[in-house]
Amino acid sequence: MDRGFPEAEFAERWARLSDMMTEAGLDAVLVTSEANFRYFSGFASQTWVTPTRPRYLVLPRDGEPIAVVPTSNLQGMQDGTPVRDLRSWQAPCPADDGISLVLSALRDCARRFGAIGAELGHESRLGMPAGDLLRLIGELRPIELRDAMPLIARQRMVKSPLEVERIRRIAGIASDSFEALPQVAAGCSTVREVCQRLQADLILRGADKTPYVVGEAGADGYEMVMMGPSDRRLGEGDLLFIDTGSQYDGYFCDFDRHYAIGTPADAVRRAYDAVYEATDAGLDAVRPGQRTCDVWRAMEGALRARKAEASYVGRMGHGLGLSLTEPPSIHPRDETVLMPGMVITLEPSMTYVWPDPAGPVAKLMVHEENVVVTEDGCVLLSRRASADIPLLDVGSRR
Amino acid sequence: MDRGFPEAEFAERWARLSDMMTEAGLDAVLVTSEANFRYFSGFASQTWVTPTRPRYLVLPRDGEPIAVVPTSNLQGMQDGTPVRDLRSWQAPCPADDGISLVLSALRDCARRFGAIGAELGHESRLGMPAGDLLRLIGELRPIELRDAMPLIARQRMVKSPLEVERIRRIAGIASDSFEALPQVAAGCSTVREVCQRLQADLILRGADKTPYVVGEAGADGYEMVMMGPSDRRLGEGDLLFIDTGSQYDGYFCDFDRHYAIGTPADAVRRAYDAVYEATDAGLDAVRPGQRTCDVWRAMEGALRARKAEASYVGRMGHGLGLSLTEPPSIHPRDETVLMPGMVITLEPSMTYVWPDPAGPVAKLMVHEENVVVTEDGCVLLSRRASADIPLLDVGSRR
Repeated sequence: MDRGFPEAEFAERWARLSDMMTEAGLDAVLVTSEANFRYFSGFASQTWVTPTRPRYLVLPRDGEPIAVVPTSNLQGMQDGTPVRDLRSWQAPCPADDGISLVLSALRDCARRFGAIGAELGHESRLGMPAGDLLRLIGELRPIELRDAMPLIARQRMVKSPLEVERIRRIAGIASDSFEALPQVAAGCSTVREVCQRLQADLILRGADKTPYVVGEAGADGYEMVMMGPSDRRLGEGDLLFIDTGSQYDGYFCDFDRHYAIGTPADAVRRAYDAVYEATDAGLDAVRPGQRTCDVWRAMEGALRARKAEASYVGRMGHGLGLSLTEPPSIHPRDETVLMPGMVITLEPSMTYVWPDPAGPVAKLMVHEENVVVTEDGCVLLSRRASADIPLLDVGSRR
Repeated sequence: MDRGFPEAEFAERWARLSDMMTEAGLDAVLVTSEANFRYFSGFASQTWVTPTRPRYLVLPRDGEPIAVVPTSNLQGMQDGTPVRDLRSWQAPCPADDGISLVLSALRDCARRFGAIGAELGHESRLGMPAGDLLRLIGELRPIELRDAMPLIARQRMVKSPLEVERIRRIAGIASDSFEALPQVAAGCSTVREVCQRLQADLILRGADKTPYVVGEAGADGYEMVMMGPSDRRLGEGDLLFIDTGSQYDGYFCDFDRHYAIGTPADAVRRAYDAVYEATDAGLDAVRPGQRTCDVWRAMEGALRARKAEASYVGRMGHGLGLSLTEPPSIHPRDETVLMPGMVITLEPSMTYVWPDPAGPVAKLMVHEENVVVTEDGCVLLSRRASADIPLLDVGSRR
């Protein structure tokens, strides 16, 4: 599969955003975060890991995009993006790290509405120092800076066929790695070792990056899902949870799998079955016209039917694309209407109380799959987890 | 090596910051970025890759740190950090993602100076939506929000022995991987394949993460250093440049290595030698009391003595720690005075013109090593690059 996108796809992205700007009364949108900069320019570079040099992309309602980038990124922009108006400065330059160039570009755009959109709202992050944003806001007056996240989120939620292909590819790679884990992790003793083997395997199978590979394990279940991997030595009776957000050509997969070391306890099996059924209920509920809160209700209802209690994780899935998590949320208060091309995770979770000899412990059970919404339902991008907990022959026998 | 730090180390970090707050007239410092949150709390989680849930750490001048985190991070904070004042909300909650909790914590602190520090200045990034920062600024009035980056940078620049050990460890792992590359990359055809093999090898040798593994190659040299890896098929006469920022326990190494496929051209050898000598000049120049601009001048002088021209990359090295690049800059206008415990990269670079048949091309040559400043000089953390360009037997013979 080729990486990158044809210029026509960017032209379409720019045109759609321009239409939304007209509706919203914005003269331009300024983006600085890695995901949005990449979405609107195609700039694919690992250099975002360093905070030293910011990059600015100005998307005018009326006119061609303007990139303001350090000289060290100039050739990468020229060779790898369809953006032709490139302005640069030699960074780092603490006194003026591109800001006067950005100001002048934004002022030139702000002719009709006197308003510029920027990444301000929920689930946004700046790719520039906040102090420079405050300076921009001050010097732009009376031109106003408003939140552009609702526009950008609405646009990015619906993926093009080429975007879906990328997520399908990385989800396929991760499915292969998860299925091969019993072989790949042979001889490992700890959760960390299993996760490191998985990371290396993902990369050797074609993942570009593995920014998120977490693992948790515990006797008869786990208590956290966003920490780890820990140095816990795996032993008989442990349930191992592994979650990965890996990337191909910038796009993420995001799903987890479970492995039992030895025979899982009945309570663990029951929790696994309940959340597995909740995922099935979610898969049945996803179709165009349904709202994300409807999908949440379907999964929550399936858990309740099993007398299981939804966990404190806060939602049961989310959008997926150039960000590991992006809008919408599968949440009782999110009313996003599903449309063909949306890629979401279904991530039902429950808590159950384990009667540990030292006192009762709240255990978690979180399942996750990735799907794309189609004309009449949805299609899995991850390969559906096994209905039975797969066994992993690692660690010590207690 | 154990991961994490003893509580005493955090107590010291809090005390040092508190002293600087008293000097600077700040009642508290608010941090939200991954590196600063981790530096001051020890919270080690891969969940920072998602922008959905922000986290806030309030470091009062007078009093114990307060963390405002989503419920899903509560147990991770309890188990993995010395922060005892934990306040939480169920995220995502677009209407109030922790902001009212943060406001109330900050107001309680602002008793003496009426001023709070935050991550606003050069080389900073927020770990929260910028719109929520604007809301904080508005609602805090008349309490002022000021830039805390000069304080934080000054503190983080000087590493503790345990921090240096972590950088030494990851630099050692990367040195091993670079040296093994001729074996590890056997049979590879493209720059991308070589980089993927290197990534997997880094992980299997004990790197936790490999966020930055870039490669560039070209006939008789390369033209970019922050892009790639590309799908270029390696062939006789190519010079391959690989740079990695890999992590152990949160801490980065950052250095590059070169490989020749077949015999390198004389101009390539000359450039390699010039930049190699410039690195030696940098190693000689680094000692307590010298300024970063002095180190820059030593390297630039060595290049000039070879009639080589410093490149447009913009500096010749930088601080290294929990961020891949952090203050100070090895730059003619940076006057940071070196102190024992500082970890920096030496990264001299030059451009040379290659008389390509299709027209002259500007090639780059960038070398990099990692050092820690000692009482009377510096010690390498990376294993010094070979004085001769190592050969790589990959790709096709043209």
